[in-house]
Amino acid sequence: MAALKNNTFIRALLRQPVPYTPVWIMRQAGRYLPEYNATRKRAGSFLGLAKNPDFATEVTLQPLARFPLDAAILFSDILTVPDAMGLGLYFAEGEGPKFERPLRDETAIHALRVPEPRESLGYVLDAVKQIRGALGGSVPLIGFSGSPYTLACYMIEGGGSDDFRNIKSMLYARPDLLHHMLDINARAVIAYLNAQIEAGAQAVMVFDTWGGALSDAAYHQFSLEYLRRVISGLHREWNGEPVPSIVFTKGGGLWLEDIAAIGCNAVGLDWTVNIGAARRRIGNQAALQGNLDPAVLFSDPATIRAEAGKVLRDFGHGNGHVFNLGHGISQFTPPDHVGVLVDAVHDLSCAYH
Amino acid sequence: MAALKNNTFIRALLRQPVPYTPVWIMRQAGRYLPEYNATRKRAGSFLGLAKNPDFATEVTLQPLARFPLDAAILFSDILTVPDAMGLGLYFAEGEGPKFERPLRDETAIHALRVPEPRESLGYVLDAVKQIRGALGGSVPLIGFSGSPYTLACYMIEGGGSDDFRNIKSMLYARPDLLHHMLDINARAVIAYLNAQIEAGAQAVMVFDTWGGALSDAAYHQFSLEYLRRVISGLHREWNGEPVPSIVFTKGGGLWLEDIAAIGCNAVGLDWTVNIGAARRRIGNQAALQGNLDPAVLFSDPATIRAEAGKVLRDFGHGNGHVFNLGHGISQFTPPDHVGVLVDAVHDLSCAYH
Repeated sequence: MAALKNNTFIRALLRQPVPYTPVWIMRQAGRYLPEYNATRKRAGSFLGLAKNPDFATEVTLQPLARFPLDAAILFSDILTVPDAMGLGLYFAEGEGPKFERPLRDETAIHALRVPEPRESLGYVLDAVKQIRGALGGSVPLIGFSGSPYTLACYMIEGGGSDDFRNIKSMLYARPDLLHHMLDINARAVIAYLNAQIEAGAQAVMVFDTWGGALSDAAYHQFSLEYLRRVISGLHREWNGEPVPSIVFTKGGGLWLEDIAAIGCNAVGLDWTVNIGAARRRIGNQAALQGNLDPAVLFSDPATIRAEAGKVLRDFGHGNGHVFNLGHGISQFTPPDHVGVLVDAVHDLSCAYH
Repeated sequence: MAALKNNTFIRALLRQPVPYTPVWIMRQAGRYLPEYNATRKRAGSFLGLAKNPDFATEVTLQPLARFPLDAAILFSDILTVPDAMGLGLYFAEGEGPKFERPLRDETAIHALRVPEPRESLGYVLDAVKQIRGALGGSVPLIGFSGSPYTLACYMIEGGGSDDFRNIKSMLYARPDLLHHMLDINARAVIAYLNAQIEAGAQAVMVFDTWGGALSDAAYHQFSLEYLRRVISGLHREWNGEPVPSIVFTKGGGLWLEDIAAIGCNAVGLDWTVNIGAARRRIGNQAALQGNLDPAVLFSDPATIRAEAGKVLRDFGHGNGHVFNLGHGISQFTPPDHVGVLVDAVHDLSCAYH
């Protein structure tokens, strides 16, 4: 495979010197781009896109054709693992992801098995290989998965939830059952992310979308512990190249030190955290990724530039910052505003390196 | 008016010694109680309940007839102030609160006026007087309002929101307009809460439901600054009795010290915060209210007792704790479980006083 022409993203995750702060955008291949919507229409559905390596490659590259982003991220979904376990992932029009067969009883939970990625998630590995080839070493490719706890939320609730009534009932009344499921999820995520790395992913990110809805004690026992196991089980390098990891617990601002301590290379920050305060708390333990409020992109170019400048200034001089939003980009974002942001980050960050 | 027979709630807010930790439950008069649902049916709607002092008194007292709670809270809504400003509050069946006339243009925002509570919110003040009389000094009555920023969220979005696209667009693109609205909201909340105090409310709570969705910098400028103004403008005592204040920013765990520093008597905690860590951070600056995960009430009596015990143990010995959930009680809670919780708090907390 081609050597990386732009390795600023990898170097920043490893807290090595870079000439400017690298930037990518969560959900950068997404509905705010007209060309994405056109491809999705041809594919028929979100899963039609994600399960077809040609389409997945096409949409992964679309934002890179528009903007000088410093990383590509595999076009896929955080819930492919439970889909491979047989739960039946689907997307109802205008709603979030759902499962046809949510897990509510002990028998179904004890029947869960760790899927073999090459057998049941081959479409993802094919997409990784194809995207990696298409990138030709221009920028690194990020692989990803949902966290063990976040997968369990969807597996038990059957979709998104306001109150996580079903999983939290299990957590408090039958913690043994939930731990059993989380152990399987952790082993499945490790096998899946390692298969992505073997297929060509050059960094991996674990999205803990719902860990932030747990109590402090429950977060440590039911989410962070399994994130720790995942990070411990990942390839740290492949083909002689380091493969850095990023852990992002949305709403996890209270636990940043604890997340950094599980051994990931970088901690993702949502927009509620001051990145300078986060850096002082974490010290040299991990790099930071984030964390502009996605709503800033609804404003005007001058404001976008000023707000990006504030995040860079709050982080300050030195290594270990990957710029990103604090959450996925909104579908209502004017695409040009992403260009303004990427240029602002590249331009303004030179002063800090 | 009758002297208070049980003043543990007031004393705990003032960090004075109490024989046990007082407890009340956010939304304790609510849909988990069959008698509440029966009264609501007679009233025809939520607003039919809230705007009729007889019904409001009836449902306020219902949980107190079942459980030995240490405070009553006025049955009302956090959004009565913008309703009094003419925005037209309504509740669509099965959905959250909405406004018929959300504010989107500069002319409408500049036309906003601070409502005179005795003119446009008389039904609330009548309910306060009637409830206070009906309580007969058994426990204190809490008055409340939404925070200036939370009111603005609903006023601009017209209802709940996943992304707060409209208010955040204004925040970043036209901060002057949003500050203008927040200044009016703060003055309106001060007038409203002081009128509740004059009518008989013995403590007041400000619910900042959506401040936690702001960035760190925006929270300080657009929510906390106006909470500070509200607290500064409130009666600190009435008829020779102290009237303590509680500020609760949901998702505000990162900013607890800053909230305590605005001069409120107590800081409300959601369930994501460890209350022991919160106490160490805040020190003697304020009392704490919270913070059991409401989902614990879906489990069984032994677990409820154990989890309540953990919150009490995490807070530890000494004064300044009002026990509560970390969020409003779910409509799906078995009513008996509330009794288990209240008894557990009273029973287990004696060891810490």
